[in-house]
Amino acid sequence: MSPLSIASAAEVEHLLHDDLQAVEQEFARQSQSQVEVITEIGDYLLAGGGKRIRPLLLLLSAKSLGFDGESRIRMGAVVEMLHTATLVHDDIIDNATTRRGRPSTNAKWGNSKCVLAGDWLYMQSFQTALRERNFHVLDLLITLTQQMVEGELLQTEKLGHLINEEEYFDLIYRKTACLFKVSMQLGAALAGSEDVIEQRLGEYGRNLGIAFQIVDDVLDLTATTAKLGKPAASDLREGKATLAVIHALERGTGAERECIRTVLNDRGFDRVTHATILDILKRHGSIAYAMDAARAYAEAARQSIAEMPRSAAQRALLWVPGFVVNREN
Amino acid sequence: MSPLSIASAAEVEHLLHDDLQAVEQEFARQSQSQVEVITEIGDYLLAGGGKRIRPLLLLLSAKSLGFDGESRIRMGAVVEMLHTATLVHDDIIDNATTRRGRPSTNAKWGNSKCVLAGDWLYMQSFQTALRERNFHVLDLLITLTQQMVEGELLQTEKLGHLINEEEYFDLIYRKTACLFKVSMQLGAALAGSEDVIEQRLGEYGRNLGIAFQIVDDVLDLTATTAKLGKPAASDLREGKATLAVIHALERGTGAERECIRTVLNDRGFDRVTHATILDILKRHGSIAYAMDAARAYAEAARQSIAEMPRSAAQRALLWVPGFVVNREN
Repeated sequence: MSPLSIASAAEVEHLLHDDLQAVEQEFARQSQSQVEVITEIGDYLLAGGGKRIRPLLLLLSAKSLGFDGESRIRMGAVVEMLHTATLVHDDIIDNATTRRGRPSTNAKWGNSKCVLAGDWLYMQSFQTALRERNFHVLDLLITLTQQMVEGELLQTEKLGHLINEEEYFDLIYRKTACLFKVSMQLGAALAGSEDVIEQRLGEYGRNLGIAFQIVDDVLDLTATTAKLGKPAASDLREGKATLAVIHALERGTGAERECIRTVLNDRGFDRVTHATILDILKRHGSIAYAMDAARAYAEAARQSIAEMPRSAAQRALLWVPGFVVNREN
Repeated sequence: MSPLSIASAAEVEHLLHDDLQAVEQEFARQSQSQVEVITEIGDYLLAGGGKRIRPLLLLLSAKSLGFDGESRIRMGAVVEMLHTATLVHDDIIDNATTRRGRPSTNAKWGNSKCVLAGDWLYMQSFQTALRERNFHVLDLLITLTQQMVEGELLQTEKLGHLINEEEYFDLIYRKTACLFKVSMQLGAALAGSEDVIEQRLGEYGRNLGIAFQIVDDVLDLTATTAKLGKPAASDLREGKATLAVIHALERGTGAERECIRTVLNDRGFDRVTHATILDILKRHGSIAYAMDAARAYAEAARQSIAEMPRSAAQRALLWVPGFVVNREN
């Protein structure tokens, strides 16, 4: 097999620049409502930025199959809006105060309005998706949303508890990989591709999403508050055990395990410091273990589409996994 | 015009008994999830009962057009589940402690789980509706849900403020009449009826829904906690001005207006008692005014379908408005 030809960041930027800008405008248009506070919250969320990786995947998936109808822009906005709706509700649930370096919406508008703003964003994305007049598109979106909501509920139930790797992978599938997968599948659905192609692109999205979330969880442990735009080690503060932590829990001494348990139970670093936890993770190579896992999933993503016809979009899809595992925030 | 032939309560009960039981079972089936807490919350909500007036309308609408396919049961469960989803989120927003004489779901499971349980119920109703493979059905449901969410947001913005009748009628349309209207329209959509018929049945639902909500708001002011299954005068305690209160505000003396404003501002009866407010409302005939308005809308509902072909279902639809305005809880 010849080595994979991978696009550069500049090529990807060039390839998607106009489309991503169009998605941005579509999102802005979609989040206008006669109810002022909805428009306000929508504008605030849009201005907060984000990597827009979900629309990027949808666009590349569609492009890799030669589809460039207007639907790709609308559906790009839909997947980002759906993602935004989950963030609005998650921030209420996690009692978050900051997101992307600014006050979270719940901190700014209060829980009541944000429950409803989240509901509205869900409905607006379905409303927009409905315009495609494509039942398969709706099946994908509704099933996805239900899986994400169930995942968040499962996570709520597991806060403060030790979980094993299997439970961790199920949670991050629901939390992130599921929407990455569906973003890829939607691109294929718009292009009217065969099931087997849609499946392969979905497989790429699933693998990439798992890599993405493992890295997110590692960064949460190791990066600074400034880089993250939210408090460092938020997961531990919320009682969430992620891959590196689960690894250390399985390999650590009794005393080390006790340290980790204390933080998860306390939901804070009052009795055991963040530095102590990082020492334990490094001592057992747990951060490296998690990053290796992320790289393996990133590689699996590449392999899922290695056999697809060469195109600028396919080469860009081969670039994304490297970007995902090497990013710093 | 010959006088309308109106069914008795016993006839309506007989006509719908089996269907309503089937809807109940369908709701129970639909609210099963692998995520245990969802099933728990779903069972709790189902056991809490309710008038099931929305499925009743859908069933009668479909029956009045001669439709009795299985879809009517599924869609009956969908409108009740959608209604339930809004209640779960509304109770979070209103900080409710009781509903239908029992702890509200948020009081029992906490806000976090209830945000997600509400989301899940929304998605499950769309999931079920999607099985109809009917875009028009989905258009009706998604537009409806968005209108309801916007209505709740508008209400949140207006809490503690004086509103006029026009704003009141817009709010109760969104809060209640909209779903009554769509329940009727869905019955027609399942039957594949002409637009004009769907419109007429929708008009019935809208008028009935407005009558229903006016009566609900009057009962909130006048009925006891025991009858209501929630604290008496909840609306005033939440800063909500309803029709009778708006009427008294427009006709009362400066001192009377001040009393009402105080309660709305304080969101409680610490400085002005509930009895004082009731005295003011009675003095100006405000309760009677609201009930007259409800009866006028109930009559308008009857007139909307007066010209439809006679059938057991049509006679039952003529019975519902009387039931709605004469109920005690």
